[in-house]
Amino acid sequence: MIGYGFMGRAHSNAWRQVSHFFPLKARVEMHTICGRDRAHVEAARAQLGWQYAGTDWREVVESPLIDIVDICTSNASHTEIALAAARAGKHILCEKPLALDSANAEKMLAAVRKFRVRNTVVFNYRRVPAIAYAKQMIDSGQLGQLRHFRGTYLQDWISDPKFPMNWRLRKETAGSGSHGDLNAHLIDTARFLVGDIAETVGLQETFIAERPKEGQAIGLTATTGKGTEKVTVDDATAFLAKFAPGKNAAPGAYATIEATRLAPGHKNYNYFEINGSEGSLSFCFERMNELQYCNRNDAPDKPGFKTILCTEGSHPYFGAWWPPGHVIGYEHTFIHTVSDFINGVATGTDVHADFLDGAKCVAVLESVVASKKAKGWVKVANIK
Amino acid sequence: MIGYGFMGRAHSNAWRQVSHFFPLKARVEMHTICGRDRAHVEAARAQLGWQYAGTDWREVVESPLIDIVDICTSNASHTEIALAAARAGKHILCEKPLALDSANAEKMLAAVRKFRVRNTVVFNYRRVPAIAYAKQMIDSGQLGQLRHFRGTYLQDWISDPKFPMNWRLRKETAGSGSHGDLNAHLIDTARFLVGDIAETVGLQETFIAERPKEGQAIGLTATTGKGTEKVTVDDATAFLAKFAPGKNAAPGAYATIEATRLAPGHKNYNYFEINGSEGSLSFCFERMNELQYCNRNDAPDKPGFKTILCTEGSHPYFGAWWPPGHVIGYEHTFIHTVSDFINGVATGTDVHADFLDGAKCVAVLESVVASKKAKGWVKVANIK
Amino acid sequence: MIGYGFMGRAHSNAWRQVSHFFPLKARVEMHTICGRDRAHVEAARAQLGWQYAGTDWREVVESPLIDIVDICTSNASHTEIALAAARAGKHILCEKPLALDSANAEKMLAAVRKFRVRNTVVFNYRRVPAIAYAKQMIDSGQLGQLRHFRGTYLQDWISDPKFPMNWRLRKETAGSGSHGDLNAHLIDTARFLVGDIAETVGLQETFIAERPKEGQAIGLTATTGKGTEKVTVDDATAFLAKFAPGKNAAPGAYATIEATRLAPGHKNYNYFEINGSEGSLSFCFERMNELQYCNRNDAPDKPGFKTILCTEGSHPYFGAWWPPGHVIGYEHTFIHTVSDFINGVATGTDVHADFLDGAKCVAVLESVVASKKAKGWVKVANIK
Amino acid sequence: MIGYGFMGRAHSNAWRQVSHFFPLKARVEMHTICGRDRAHVEAARAQLGWQYAGTDWREVVESPLIDIVDICTSNASHTEIALAAARAGKHILCEKPLALDSANAEKMLAAVRKFRVRNTVVFNYRRVPAIAYAKQMIDSGQLGQLRHFRGTYLQDWISDPKFPMNWRLRKETAGSGSHGDLNAHLIDTARFLVGDIAETVGLQETFIAERPKEGQAIGLTATTGKGTEKVTVDDATAFLAKFAPGKNAAPGAYATIEATRLAPGHKNYNYFEINGSEGSLSFCFERMNELQYCNRNDAPDKPGFKTILCTEGSHPYFGAWWPPGHVIGYEHTFIHTVSDFINGVATGTDVHADFLDGAKCVAVLESVVASKKAKGWVKVANIK
Repeated sequence: MIGYGFMGRAHSNAWRQVSHFFPLKARVEMHTICGRDRAHVEAARAQLGWQYAGTDWREVVESPLIDIVDICTSNASHTEIALAAARAGKHILCEKPLALDSANAEKMLAAVRKFRVRNTVVFNYRRVPAIAYAKQMIDSGQLGQLRHFRGTYLQDWISDPKFPMNWRLRKETAGSGSHGDLNAHLIDTARFLVGDIAETVGLQETFIAERPKEGQAIGLTATTGKGTEKVTVDDATAFLAKFAPGKNAAPGAYATIEATRLAPGHKNYNYFEINGSEGSLSFCFERMNELQYCNRNDAPDKPGFKTILCTEGSHPYFGAWWPPGHVIGYEHTFIHTVSDFINGVATGTDVHADFLDGAKCVAVLESVVASKKAKGWVKVANIK
Repeated sequence: MIGYGFMGRAHSNAWRQVSHFFPLKARVEMHTICGRDRAHVEAARAQLGWQYAGTDWREVVESPLIDIVDICTSNASHTEIALAAARAGKHILCEKPLALDSANAEKMLAAVRKFRVRNTVVFNYRRVPAIAYAKQMIDSGQLGQLRHFRGTYLQDWISDPKFPMNWRLRKETAGSGSHGDLNAHLIDTARFLVGDIAETVGLQETFIAERPKEGQAIGLTATTGKGTEKVTVDDATAFLAKFAPGKNAAPGAYATIEATRLAPGHKNYNYFEINGSEGSLSFCFERMNELQYCNRNDAPDKPGFKTILCTEGSHPYFGAWWPPGHVIGYEHTFIHTVSDFINGVATGTDVHADFLDGAKCVAVLESVVASKKAKGWVKVANIK
Repeated sequence: MIGYGFMGRAHSNAWRQVSHFFPLKARVEMHTICGRDRAHVEAARAQLGWQYAGTDWREVVESPLIDIVDICTSNASHTEIALAAARAGKHILCEKPLALDSANAEKMLAAVRKFRVRNTVVFNYRRVPAIAYAKQMIDSGQLGQLRHFRGTYLQDWISDPKFPMNWRLRKETAGSGSHGDLNAHLIDTARFLVGDIAETVGLQETFIAERPKEGQAIGLTATTGKGTEKVTVDDATAFLAKFAPGKNAAPGAYATIEATRLAPGHKNYNYFEINGSEGSLSFCFERMNELQYCNRNDAPDKPGFKTILCTEGSHPYFGAWWPPGHVIGYEHTFIHTVSDFINGVATGTDVHADFLDGAKCVAVLESVVASKKAKGWVKVANIK
Repeated sequence: MIGYGFMGRAHSNAWRQVSHFFPLKARVEMHTICGRDRAHVEAARAQLGWQYAGTDWREVVESPLIDIVDICTSNASHTEIALAAARAGKHILCEKPLALDSANAEKMLAAVRKFRVRNTVVFNYRRVPAIAYAKQMIDSGQLGQLRHFRGTYLQDWISDPKFPMNWRLRKETAGSGSHGDLNAHLIDTARFLVGDIAETVGLQETFIAERPKEGQAIGLTATTGKGTEKVTVDDATAFLAKFAPGKNAAPGAYATIEATRLAPGHKNYNYFEINGSEGSLSFCFERMNELQYCNRNDAPDKPGFKTILCTEGSHPYFGAWWPPGHVIGYEHTFIHTVSDFINGVATGTDVHADFLDGAKCVAVLESVVASKKAKGWVKVANIK
């Protein structure tokens, strides 16, 4: 594993826990964790349960003792590491977004194809049991042809204008703000459940354009330093999208998608609703064990949404955990991802979301940015 | 009152009830109801509580016994009736949308100004106590500068492809479908609470393009006739909007607005959320007595939304009704509108939403339609 | 109508509105309203829409121009008025609770039987569409045998210890506090939906035993006077109940029932849940247009409660109102009651809840009070 | 650890995870897991992450290599194992209920006192962040004096009469049914948040008195065998309780408490609401990351409950996990318990809930059973 920030903690937990709950087709050995700072990475190693700590990612990536490379570094370095890992024949699990732009994403896609390594982008929300179950319902036709996708990803962690700068608020390190961080998830969910996106038009805004400088780091945040710094990424963004014709999407199907870090009261409100010809579904991550479902064909005097607690043994992944009603949380989505990836590697089977999915997501993000300049609808690059 | 359909019933009830609950500055006399069919209008008169029934709207509008004309006819006839009423010096209460296009709306606006008659468009949702209270909160700065308006108006009454045609599904009678019927309400709410809209980009779709012909009318619906007919209005629509700079709107403030009649499980889901620099609000008509409110400045360990039941004596309009917790319904919004209008007429004071509001709403609707052709952002006509 | 307080307003509205919405088998004439204070009753007459005002209830009750007597006075006077009305051959609609004790209730029951007059106790919640629909579901077996009834009626209007005394807080005028006022409703709902109650055990408490004296009346409340006065009724109460064997109740079926005026945050939280062998239902008046329903026999991967908006034309009473999703409120329950009562009188058919229901409710209330002294379970008097 | 069933899995996970998230004052070594069946316990050892597997619990309990004994066996064996562990000087973490009756619970309490070992009963819900936070709010006076506790623990796993027998449905292995299993949790929560219980009256029912015999075990359930067997425990139970005077409980404070395994639609609905003189709180485990809170002293036009997502760094335990809004699940409550217990052992500090809490809970359970025979209120044994 390269990197040991927030995602490094979540991924390490997944590697540590997976074999205690899921039947795996290979034995997991948590070999090496890698970071730039010797003392920090050693502390992370001890804390997170790895055997070795390294500071040279190239060395680790090329080590013959390693089969899988898990990339948890900041967005800007994904491409370089993934290219090296593919070249070294390692299977790759990469945090989202796959790359800062679609040119880089396509290089990565070409590399994993050329070197025939298993590859996945960690769109962890695909493996929330409720969302995985929604996918089953849609694929089995329970919603009919899908017409609307309505996604919002609402947070409020930078609502306070005194909240200081950090790497996520700078273009050079983060690429973009709410768009790349949050819309990336909504786009992937829309693609996963409805289908490919053909065209978009949208906007990005930076409502709080200047913030106090960053002081001392404390965990994921920092104290406030002296003076101010310009924020160079968006803090809110919205777009309309038209879906490409597909198996699940009705002709004319469209999406409204919005992400913001300035919605007081919402913490991790990753929400969507889908309306199809035969029914509707909605989901919000803050109540991640629940799925709202309406079947249009129910008795006319019993219209409405049912709150399904997706904690039955028959729901995806949940059978590995606890009895019904004994809910699970955020980190479980990573355990599910790692479980599927290990089995994919062991059996030589593809694991979604793969680098093609990752690249397509980047292309949609890019089209929205382009639409701002074009002041109108822009076609999404057709990556294959 | 001209017309006696669904809106005629709701307006009649309002005229009948208002004096029993609200202190009025004038006495109400429900003089004449007017419609084309003699037998039908006579039945409506008896049922709805009017003294006289007429079949010639011009005669009624010009009668010296009449002070106020209430226009509840189908959208296409609003302009002609309102022009005649203004000319006759009558105060006018007109159903929304004010007119089929902004040219007609501006004519109506010019007429009421020229003849100095009190005028209002019945955007009844402005007088849901929860929304009127939201307006007070916003105007007193409790939400700070507003950044996001997120509105959806979801219904499902034509989800069944076998649901037959009616006048609402034909362009010549309805003007448009979900856009003019439902988005008109969302646009008015956005304008009422946030401010004027400057630019839009959007889409309209007709997912079910052909339907069984209309058979015999039964109340608001009809039996299924033989053969099919082309649907000539949209059944779903969405757009992005940028607000004009204003008192409540932050620079860069935007809206996402969507309306559909094809969202299974939603009956009259007129919903919006507003995020401001100091807090958030949300509302859904299906739970019209409630307002969700988050104050960003609450204690850090007590973040979140409060469900405020807007049934206190201190909430707008509610003091006239029942003790707290004894909820009210849809028709009350019309009673509140009529109460304010009567007092406005009696005291010579303006009553929102006036014809200027009505015309501006039509202009926003038009800009969205224009953006479809333009394949990009379109400026909203600046009506003054 | 005798009395013109809060209930007088609600009943008058019902008599005024009913013919505009419901097909009636008799013509309604709002003849006389009666009260002790000449000026007040005259003001009420004008405000509430009655033709005449009287101050001598005996005279009114005996008038040959009157067919129906509607008793809205304070609880202590119900018996005397009802006995006189029955003797005069009038059909009687009486506010709940029927009487202060079961001895008086039985006298009233005997009188309406002897003089063969139509009689009803206004348990208005029976005619919330959602509850009337719940009754249909239960009677058609959709919930199977009922095992649990869990009712709470939570308010907070006297939470503030500075809230002054009023007639509802004195034993001589109100009979009891939360018990007679709120539990009476829960008991009636339990009896309506599940069946007769055979035995109870419970408690009553007065947490705030002294309050400021009452000052000047202002509407339903009053200013604070000088000095304090002892509160002589309960402000909170709870009991367990065992149902008698019956058509809907399973052997062993029991209820938990609680009412309080000291539950901060609840305004009119008249809530119940019922669990049966085949499904569950729950309802809360603050969201009175909704019913929560779970069918145990749904697909195992789709467990949970559906939120049914009871606003379809097929739901009880709703067809008379507005299109689906256009919700109704508190006062509508009285309109539905009056509609059924008028038709019952016109056609000579019984209208539930009748005086037998009212007397049985009083007997259950009494048994709970008796259980406090007995420190154990007490059988409910078997009124027939 | 003795035992490796459902609770064994949950406890093992806690021991495994705790050091990766919480700063501990001692190093954890997962030494030995113990069970009767050699093959099963060896499989559990491998799956759950223990070093050694044993089949003789006495040997394990007395081993000088062991400091802490974790008792996860069936209820009937808790006493014997705990007595032996205490005698051997081991610190003890014991699953609830502490013992089958209060006589045995008092023996256990005496033993841990005599041998001065740290002791805790795993009432894991105390360490749901939302409940731990509720405790802080109450102890700091934010709810004022507490008047009502309203607890229901609703499940539906034996709603199907064809669900076969298992050890939880037999008196000799489980002691009791819904009462000991579910009410035990509610009683502990009531005691934790409000205070000691002085008196109770209640009932127990067995609605489904006979079930198919148990067939082959499959995980936590089993296939259906041939023939039927009598169910010897309750499947539903309810009681009223009066609190003893205390720091948080108002004079007269009472509780309604109900548990059932026959409430279709509820999976693990461990719910309570508390009303105090200054505010209210409610919680439901199925949405365990949320707390509903009403402050009576909020502005009069802003009454109501706030949905607090208890996922801030400032909420109890949550700081060790993920950013706000990234919710946690059931198993985390055990990790929090184990974390506190380890630190209690390391520093010689008491850890609640201790064996006194466990014994008091058993005494309340017993009083309810006794009240059934007594047909009235019964005092709870005063364990000190």
